[in-house]
Amino acid sequence: MKQKKVISDAVIERLPLYYRDLLLLQDAGIDIISSEKLGERLGITPEQIRKDLTCFGAFGKKGVGYYVGELCQQIVEIIGLQQHWKVGIAGIGHLGWALANYKTFGRLGFRTTGLFDVDHRIIGQNVGGVIVTPISEMDKVIRKEGIQIGIITTPASVAQQVADQMVNAGIKGILSFAPLRLNVPDHIFVFREDLSIGLSRISYYLTNKPEEQ
Amino acid sequence: MKQKKVISDAVIERLPLYYRDLLLLQDAGIDIISSEKLGERLGITPEQIRKDLTCFGAFGKKGVGYYVGELCQQIVEIIGLQQHWKVGIAGIGHLGWALANYKTFGRLGFRTTGLFDVDHRIIGQNVGGVIVTPISEMDKVIRKEGIQIGIITTPASVAQQVADQMVNAGIKGILSFAPLRLNVPDHIFVFREDLSIGLSRISYYLTNKPEEQ
Repeated sequence: MKQKKVISDAVIERLPLYYRDLLLLQDAGIDIISSEKLGERLGITPEQIRKDLTCFGAFGKKGVGYYVGELCQQIVEIIGLQQHWKVGIAGIGHLGWALANYKTFGRLGFRTTGLFDVDHRIIGQNVGGVIVTPISEMDKVIRKEGIQIGIITTPASVAQQVADQMVNAGIKGILSFAPLRLNVPDHIFVFREDLSIGLSRISYYLTNKPEEQ
Repeated sequence: MKQKKVISDAVIERLPLYYRDLLLLQDAGIDIISSEKLGERLGITPEQIRKDLTCFGAFGKKGVGYYVGELCQQIVEIIGLQQHWKVGIAGIGHLGWALANYKTFGRLGFRTTGLFDVDHRIIGQNVGGVIVTPISEMDKVIRKEGIQIGIITTPASVAQQVADQMVNAGIKGILSFAPLRLNVPDHIFVFREDLSIGLSRISYYLTNKPEEQ
């Protein structure tokens, strides 16, 4: 029976990190790993790992560790990666281009099947195996391919318009790199990514940390 | 006198968001904005904005709003953006390329002055105005340019080695896109970015949300 326990956002954000490392372990032929070892690899305390993983049931063998394959499978099911989500990216500038070629998305089960832009120099190009189509045809491609998730890497000035177009075509979730709020119906899930946060955090830290000698 | 109050990570992460929107307002010639308007633009409640901004002193005029220019200047000083940090990027694949061309970094005051790779097809290319140099010369460039912040967009397998090289050359903070923990001395601040978190969050939400009709 499917478990419907609510899991905190912080745990959900750590699951892909666990999952990616478990895949690396699997590739290396490692079957069992302790929370200590996993913690060392990831920079997370073993206590936190055990707490996170018991959130959705116990998979470990006491004194031995977690079965890597089994844990992978469980995380896939919890995150919902077995769905093999189809993804469309609007705005194939540098960032869109990088995301279209980002291998980790594929490893996690996300398949990019639509790329959209307005620039005639980019339309028609093959980017990571997908041909860029005009954004005016985005509705058609989303419906035809059954794309469920949209990524917005357009300039902020057109992001809302692109989001509207995505929602109208049947997109259910949006990952947006635009620095502004998108107005979407309640049932659409928007996750906003901001690449400038990391550098700003570092700047804050370097500016405010106690001076060493 | 400089205020040394500790500000929570959550506030620090919202500050660049405020700042980027305030710059857009400034460009549009808007001098004053209320917390309600700012909240509407950003998808943050006005209460949260007022709370965040009083963390480091009151800039608003009651019943009128915040002075855009003044608030910008204050945020710059709190985050430490007036330092004009110099940034080096190691790993000029698709993501490194995108970051080297990411205009927001420049707008926030981060100047990319070093790009490093091992691939001879990439070395020597001009990417966003900077020539890519061999990673074997990274130490020399970091010292010569006085680069303080390193961005790691290399494959995970070499990320630790690159981090060591950066730290030895005098880097103080690292933004890492590698999915593994980096071992660095205590005084080095590492911020780990993971582009797969957003899609995983969306997948989780779409998998677990209550079904609508």
